[in-house]
Amino acid sequence: MALIVQKYGGTSVGKPDRIKSVARRVAGYVARGHKMVIVVSAMSGETNRLLGLAKEISPTPDPRELDVIASTGEQVTIGLLAMALKDLGLKARSYTGGQVRILTDDAHTKARILSIDEQNIKRDLDEGHVVVVAGFQGVDEKGNITTLGRGGSDTTGVALAAALGADECQIYTDVDGVYTTDPRIVPEARRLDRITFEEMLEMASLGSKVLQIRSVEFAGKYKVKLRVLSSFEDEGHEGPGTLITVEEDVNMEQPIISGIAFNRDEAKLTVLGVPDRPGIAYQILGPIADANIDVDMIIQNVGHDGSTDFSFTVNRGEYTKAMGILESVRQHIGAREITGDNKICKVSAVGVGMRSHPGVASKMFRTLAEEGINIQMISTSEIKVSVVLDEKYLELAVRVLHRAFELDQPAQ
Amino acid sequence: MALIVQKYGGTSVGKPDRIKSVARRVAGYVARGHKMVIVVSAMSGETNRLLGLAKEISPTPDPRELDVIASTGEQVTIGLLAMALKDLGLKARSYTGGQVRILTDDAHTKARILSIDEQNIKRDLDEGHVVVVAGFQGVDEKGNITTLGRGGSDTTGVALAAALGADECQIYTDVDGVYTTDPRIVPEARRLDRITFEEMLEMASLGSKVLQIRSVEFAGKYKVKLRVLSSFEDEGHEGPGTLITVEEDVNMEQPIISGIAFNRDEAKLTVLGVPDRPGIAYQILGPIADANIDVDMIIQNVGHDGSTDFSFTVNRGEYTKAMGILESVRQHIGAREITGDNKICKVSAVGVGMRSHPGVASKMFRTLAEEGINIQMISTSEIKVSVVLDEKYLELAVRVLHRAFELDQPAQ
Repeated sequence: MALIVQKYGGTSVGKPDRIKSVARRVAGYVARGHKMVIVVSAMSGETNRLLGLAKEISPTPDPRELDVIASTGEQVTIGLLAMALKDLGLKARSYTGGQVRILTDDAHTKARILSIDEQNIKRDLDEGHVVVVAGFQGVDEKGNITTLGRGGSDTTGVALAAALGADECQIYTDVDGVYTTDPRIVPEARRLDRITFEEMLEMASLGSKVLQIRSVEFAGKYKVKLRVLSSFEDEGHEGPGTLITVEEDVNMEQPIISGIAFNRDEAKLTVLGVPDRPGIAYQILGPIADANIDVDMIIQNVGHDGSTDFSFTVNRGEYTKAMGILESVRQHIGAREITGDNKICKVSAVGVGMRSHPGVASKMFRTLAEEGINIQMISTSEIKVSVVLDEKYLELAVRVLHRAFELDQPAQ
Repeated sequence: MALIVQKYGGTSVGKPDRIKSVARRVAGYVARGHKMVIVVSAMSGETNRLLGLAKEISPTPDPRELDVIASTGEQVTIGLLAMALKDLGLKARSYTGGQVRILTDDAHTKARILSIDEQNIKRDLDEGHVVVVAGFQGVDEKGNITTLGRGGSDTTGVALAAALGADECQIYTDVDGVYTTDPRIVPEARRLDRITFEEMLEMASLGSKVLQIRSVEFAGKYKVKLRVLSSFEDEGHEGPGTLITVEEDVNMEQPIISGIAFNRDEAKLTVLGVPDRPGIAYQILGPIADANIDVDMIIQNVGHDGSTDFSFTVNRGEYTKAMGILESVRQHIGAREITGDNKICKVSAVGVGMRSHPGVASKMFRTLAEEGINIQMISTSEIKVSVVLDEKYLELAVRVLHRAFELDQPAQ
């Protein structure tokens, strides 16, 4: 008998029939003797409908009131799921974030969880209830409703699992696990049985959007056993999904590379002939950050003749805005020229195995060179190598790298 | 400077544009120096949508979870209205029933308000905020979300006005006041400037559905000055509506009759040859009440030869069910026969003035007789006379009575 936290996303509870299917799955776990806590998102489309209403009222909706409105999406789902569970003869009780008391800071629309009062939930579990909790929401110290921001339901699930000391936190979604790469590009892509938190963080931030990145950080920090599974497989016949582990499995032959991640929506900007002096990176990126533009890769080469070149990538949708800001920065700092390209992509090889296996980067570069693919930028970390390429090479690059690192071969 | 509670129903907040219009009206009151508390319903159609979702999950939805779901309708509206107010430069803050703390009993879907903690609202008002409160909802002692049942937002408004000692509680709806009768039947019907609580109760229960009846009882009990107004008139150009007063205005020439109310959806049932002995009324109506059928008029004539006739009216939709029950009751109590008619209507003359003006009933009967309208049943109270008629006479009876009591003439 285990204590399991399950989280179901918007498509998994998108229609009353899907909610009933979730209830049957939960009933199966209860029948096998497990204590169950279920975290749910809003029904798919509902959050967008609510935000749309707010936008009709105001182009710049007040954040406190936006949270009051947005939090109703999950509240409807908890009521419906608890109802469906009771209809199956189970004892069940729903909780909003405020009713649990999931205490957050007061940063409306992007609040962070400070603490969870687990007493009511523990009492309900001991009395044989299935506990259904609204994801994505909490309350601040004054009792104002807060939300954790998009995808925050994953974080709620992981935080509850940590607070309750759950044996496992299962994230149900519309894919049956984490893959070596996107199967739509490489049909031979394989589901990974396990992946480390660090790898998962690199995969997620690089565009394999299975789990919200904050929830993975959280799970790593509190050592919560996390598993990604599909809610679209029949109840009782689910695959094992992908287990996200705290530690590398020392008993297993570690693959060097776990997956090939990629991101299509990138643009790069370069400031040429930057005076090579302290503080210059801040003078360039400060105004970009002030404009709320997220910067991804940042590269600065060794300078020569007292000047250097400075490059970074941003989301493609912010390319024009970023170019405008750079132009005024250029005059201010006395740089020579601004160049840019919004037809690029980023491809990364990710794997904790590369820590003990040198040569991953050179193998990656050689593989791309053999296909005549020019590399525009390179960035590396301990467990990943990323390259920026012309976007027309994206699919080709992902396919040849997937094969070169033998990701299409069964593990071990 | 006054403290005013305003309540807006579903059609008054049915679309974002209508919510913005409410915000402009409130801003006008604030500009004139008033402290404002606004109670809102769910956007029209929303409660039905939510209940529909619940019905898709379960034919007999769990009441606790139904309240969790249904209460989200008002929660969306408070957020949208507070947003709209802030967009106009006002300070505003929204409250769910639980956040105010509107404490109710735990009778889910039809809870009753036990107490209201007015401290937070008073503090906000003193700080210059407009306070926006979700109608129709509260929490029980354990923090479970409850709802007051359909139309409960009126009750929330009146209860808040009582708790805060407000100068006036204004109920905004889609009509501009209480009329002497339905203008669709009698074009000369006039808006009443004022009406007493007792008259309002008789008018409301008789089918003039402007205000929820529980809220009127509540207002009478706590002496809250209640006013019915239209939200569909331009801001700043509203009419005075109808004031519902605790006391009859002794300074004014009291009209004998305030209005002609009617109800079309009635059916009558008669038990003939009932043994005239103690307890017989209970033996007949007990099983009807047990089947959750609401009984309206009840008439029992003086008996003769040890037996009597017993009649009552029910909602037309429950006619067949009630007939079935009466048939088994008849055998049990040894009555002779059951008769019934579901093509009847009820027409009532209502007015506190009849207390001091005898002859209202006889004038009513004569007026109907002159038109050849047969009266099937009669029931009277201190301030109303009701008659049951063949439904085909409804419009004619209302018109001739409206004229006979000179309700088409301006009040003096």
